[in-house]
Amino acid sequence: MIWRHIRELVIGSPLPSEDLSEARLDKVRALAALSPDALASVAYANQEIFLGLVVAGAAGMAYSWRIACVIAGLLAVLTLSYSQTIRAYPSGGGSYIVARENLGTLMGLIAAAALLIDYVLNAAVSLTAGVEALASAFPVLWPYRTILSLVLLVIITLVNLRGLREAGTIMIVPVYLFLATYLGMIIYGAVVIAIQGPVPLETNAPQAVDAVTAFLVLRTFASGATALTGVEAISNAVPVFNPPEPRHARQTMVIMAALMGVLFLGTIGLTQLLAIMPGSEETILSALARRLFGPGPIYLLIQIATLLVLIVAANTSFTGFPRVAAVIAHDEFLPRQLKLLGDRLVFTNGILLLSFLAGFLIVIFGGDTHNLIPLFAVGAFLAFTLSQMGMVIHWIRQRNSHWRLKAFLNGIGALSTGLALLVIAVSKFVHGAWIVILLIPLIVTGFYSIRAHYDEIGRELTLVGTKPVFESGRKLRIVVPVTGIHRGVAAALQYARLITDDVKAVYIETEPDTSGDFKKNWQQYGLDKVAVLDIVPSPYRSFIGPLLDYLDRLDNEADDGQLASIVIPEFIPAKWWHNLLHNQTAWRLKLALMYRRHRMGKTRAIIDIPFHLKR
Amino acid sequence: MIWRHIRELVIGSPLPSEDLSEARLDKVRALAALSPDALASVAYANQEIFLGLVVAGAAGMAYSWRIACVIAGLLAVLTLSYSQTIRAYPSGGGSYIVARENLGTLMGLIAAAALLIDYVLNAAVSLTAGVEALASAFPVLWPYRTILSLVLLVIITLVNLRGLREAGTIMIVPVYLFLATYLGMIIYGAVVIAIQGPVPLETNAPQAVDAVTAFLVLRTFASGATALTGVEAISNAVPVFNPPEPRHARQTMVIMAALMGVLFLGTIGLTQLLAIMPGSEETILSALARRLFGPGPIYLLIQIATLLVLIVAANTSFTGFPRVAAVIAHDEFLPRQLKLLGDRLVFTNGILLLSFLAGFLIVIFGGDTHNLIPLFAVGAFLAFTLSQMGMVIHWIRQRNSHWRLKAFLNGIGALSTGLALLVIAVSKFVHGAWIVILLIPLIVTGFYSIRAHYDEIGRELTLVGTKPVFESGRKLRIVVPVTGIHRGVAAALQYARLITDDVKAVYIETEPDTSGDFKKNWQQYGLDKVAVLDIVPSPYRSFIGPLLDYLDRLDNEADDGQLASIVIPEFIPAKWWHNLLHNQTAWRLKLALMYRRHRMGKTRAIIDIPFHLKR
Repeated sequence: MIWRHIRELVIGSPLPSEDLSEARLDKVRALAALSPDALASVAYANQEIFLGLVVAGAAGMAYSWRIACVIAGLLAVLTLSYSQTIRAYPSGGGSYIVARENLGTLMGLIAAAALLIDYVLNAAVSLTAGVEALASAFPVLWPYRTILSLVLLVIITLVNLRGLREAGTIMIVPVYLFLATYLGMIIYGAVVIAIQGPVPLETNAPQAVDAVTAFLVLRTFASGATALTGVEAISNAVPVFNPPEPRHARQTMVIMAALMGVLFLGTIGLTQLLAIMPGSEETILSALARRLFGPGPIYLLIQIATLLVLIVAANTSFTGFPRVAAVIAHDEFLPRQLKLLGDRLVFTNGILLLSFLAGFLIVIFGGDTHNLIPLFAVGAFLAFTLSQMGMVIHWIRQRNSHWRLKAFLNGIGALSTGLALLVIAVSKFVHGAWIVILLIPLIVTGFYSIRAHYDEIGRELTLVGTKPVFESGRKLRIVVPVTGIHRGVAAALQYARLITDDVKAVYIETEPDTSGDFKKNWQQYGLDKVAVLDIVPSPYRSFIGPLLDYLDRLDNEADDGQLASIVIPEFIPAKWWHNLLHNQTAWRLKLALMYRRHRMGKTRAIIDIPFHLKR
Repeated sequence: MIWRHIRELVIGSPLPSEDLSEARLDKVRALAALSPDALASVAYANQEIFLGLVVAGAAGMAYSWRIACVIAGLLAVLTLSYSQTIRAYPSGGGSYIVARENLGTLMGLIAAAALLIDYVLNAAVSLTAGVEALASAFPVLWPYRTILSLVLLVIITLVNLRGLREAGTIMIVPVYLFLATYLGMIIYGAVVIAIQGPVPLETNAPQAVDAVTAFLVLRTFASGATALTGVEAISNAVPVFNPPEPRHARQTMVIMAALMGVLFLGTIGLTQLLAIMPGSEETILSALARRLFGPGPIYLLIQIATLLVLIVAANTSFTGFPRVAAVIAHDEFLPRQLKLLGDRLVFTNGILLLSFLAGFLIVIFGGDTHNLIPLFAVGAFLAFTLSQMGMVIHWIRQRNSHWRLKAFLNGIGALSTGLALLVIAVSKFVHGAWIVILLIPLIVTGFYSIRAHYDEIGRELTLVGTKPVFESGRKLRIVVPVTGIHRGVAAALQYARLITDDVKAVYIETEPDTSGDFKKNWQQYGLDKVAVLDIVPSPYRSFIGPLLDYLDRLDNEADDGQLASIVIPEFIPAKWWHNLLHNQTAWRLKLALMYRRHRMGKTRAIIDIPFHLKR
């Protein structure tokens, strides 16, 4: 009862199925709901470019602007590519659907695996990056990043289990606060530079410990490419826009991409021109904001805006992951539980699974964004590539107007993201990309074996092609295992006698020399007239083994070729924790009976007679 | 199957009950089996006296010899007291038995709680101290003390689950190795001092940060008193000696006490006269051995002997705790499971419980002996005091020859241990003794409520004074909840029809608009001739709630005043992990039905028809 109350308080009361209809969003709200993942990537991508280049000192850091421009170019290509996806899949073109439909099931499942991994990493990385933004402002929090990330994770999980019905509206605040503060900072920074002139990188850069090699630059590009994660979100969610959906979606996507480009290039430009150099317990964007505004309220506001937008970004995984998992579970490649709608019309199990996996990653990688990043980009770019490749095939198959041009554009997308994927996989391999490269085939194999299991079960259970025949009149035989003589046993015997008059009781003598007294008691209460009592010695003090052997013997002796049913007297304590005070023999016996396989698929009915204790 | 093989490999195959007879031990073996706990205490008690005094610099450390002498005096008193216990309780006089018999149940249970806590702490402290002896020799291990202690704990647990039949024999090696090396070290040290003269404490002692106050000296005494834990072991185990048991036991106890005294005073004397001062990652006994023998093989041998004797000391908890717990469980003050003899004739559950609790303490206190010590002495001295008080009453009641002298001697014992207990409780209160002082009343309350629960159950279940009557001929009604149409359902319907012809099937419509198809299928396979199908809508998608409501409605409508039985079709996957792929609706339903209470104590039979999948 208490649990139910706490549950209702935290999660809310159940919602009826008929409430399941999605509210449409206007462009302002849609941008807030769908873009945080993409926009917030700026926070960690910037940091990664800095960390990648700083080992090569000033000479290395001079590359950050060039790398940023390449990534911005990729952003433009992706935007073009995905606006074609929006046109082709107005009902939502997730990578799984596009790849599966055009490239076949295997490619679809690879994209699905990449996507799921990506959602988990987005949740983990966004939270740790958000905590790092906060801990940059309050260094005393720096050692507690893991636990802070986990606390935020729990809060987001609970909020999502409640169901975020008014997602777009709530998210307007952090997203537009983030946009306002960052755009403001970029403009202010540009003015500062215009007046004071740029600071040479050599002023602050540390001694180089590495030379600027092509590999170093490519590896840094690979880390920075995480800026592009989340770009595809709008193309997956076309149906939430007001009609005409595809047009509104495309417009919103272009706006989002433009904002991403401005934020990314703007902040990278400022950090390079101002030669920003963060300490070891601070992010580069925090150092930039502190350099421009000092450690006052404006700086604090920027850090809080960063934290909030990253929390909202993590939250996008909580809408995406359970939905994709449910789609895959619907196709029977994932456990059925993932497609169950919970009390609050959300995919409870999917949310819990995501939360567990993200928490696991946060713990394993010590709450450190930089440790997680090498795992991140692989999944995202694999999904990008497969989805664009799928689009190419889509246009070739359709052959409608301008199909060559469209296929060419998506081909460019596929080619450039594929190339980036290769760079990422190779340059980040030893740092952690190998984990994802190893995981994807494992997950895909898992998908197929789950599907095979469900198919097999369907075959074994089906009645199709059979005509079930029901025999009648056969007499049942019943065995009642007894460990004592009490009301629970009397109730069990009573029930057994209502079914049949062939009732045997069996006493397993786990303590030597106790059967004599038992037999005497049995007769004293007249139970020998209800059921024949058999005594089975148990020299090794075990209860279940000798009982199962006894049942086998009995069934062999019987001439009906059937298994005796078993009636188990079980007393149920008044409080669940009273169970700690009892042996749980009944449960262990039921498990043993249930999992025991008999020749020729015969079944033993297990009849439980609960006897409720009052106190 | 695999599990059973691993289990047999690690734990061994089951032993028959008739093997349950204890081998008698001669004095040499008995000393090895019963004294490690007491002897090994030297290792940590020494360390605690040093840590207690070092804050007061050389002036403080000058007190160590005097404190050691007081503790040795207490040891003499205890030895005298307990040799009287041996005489009076030749069948074994544990604190619980002596206190309960002479001071009443409450005092007995207080002693029992103290004893159990003490066993847990002995296991935890001995292991961490053993690991510290090892890590003193190999400083690289110092940071891994927690995990090393846990590894040792797991090994000891497994060894004890196997059953240590030849305890005395195996333990001869570490115990006598420890005695030989330590006695040798003391003699060698005495010679060194005789030749070179003592080193003034001022040579090595650090600056005092605290003054020598009476409180500081008392607190150090309280820590050092842990040297006496384990003294009572022999008096608990009189029956394992060769006859005449009491005499052999007393002789062994005197030898043990003499050895303890020599070891304790000898090592303390050496450390004081040689002004030994360990580093922060070393024990004082390690520093002593290194000072005398250099870091060569003799030093290593001493450290290993210390580690081994401490492991053996921890092991004594694994014989003591489960036995005491079984005795208390036999009196129904602890859960019944604790008195079950496992496959290998050991109290499996008691061993696991001890292992869990000791592991918990090790983890919580970071594997640091010094953190654990303040909790330790309280329990031991409380048990001492109660047991000696019990002996006083025992003699007064008996009034046999010399009863006044005997009562007086035990009275001295009770008084001095009681005084020590007071000193320990007060001076160590804030450092951790409060935990034990709080725990003991909680545990005792727990004992009483467990007993009350068992008494209540006995009253509710008993057939005494009743004459069970068995009605016959009543017709049963059966409900079969169905979620699909398959062979498992067919098997369940078949079984239901063998019991009665009043069978209803019920379909809970958790997904809207699925019942139409379901009904059609039902008729197609001719199932409507076997059972009436009822459809129940479920607007909140829940399965169990609507089903329970349906059953209530049905029972209210029926005129027999009974509850319908329920037949649950359940398919059992071929591999246990396949369960992850299924909803477990059957399990959740069974739990809900089992824990549901009905008016007037009526019972609903729960019939499970397992359907085994082949692959």
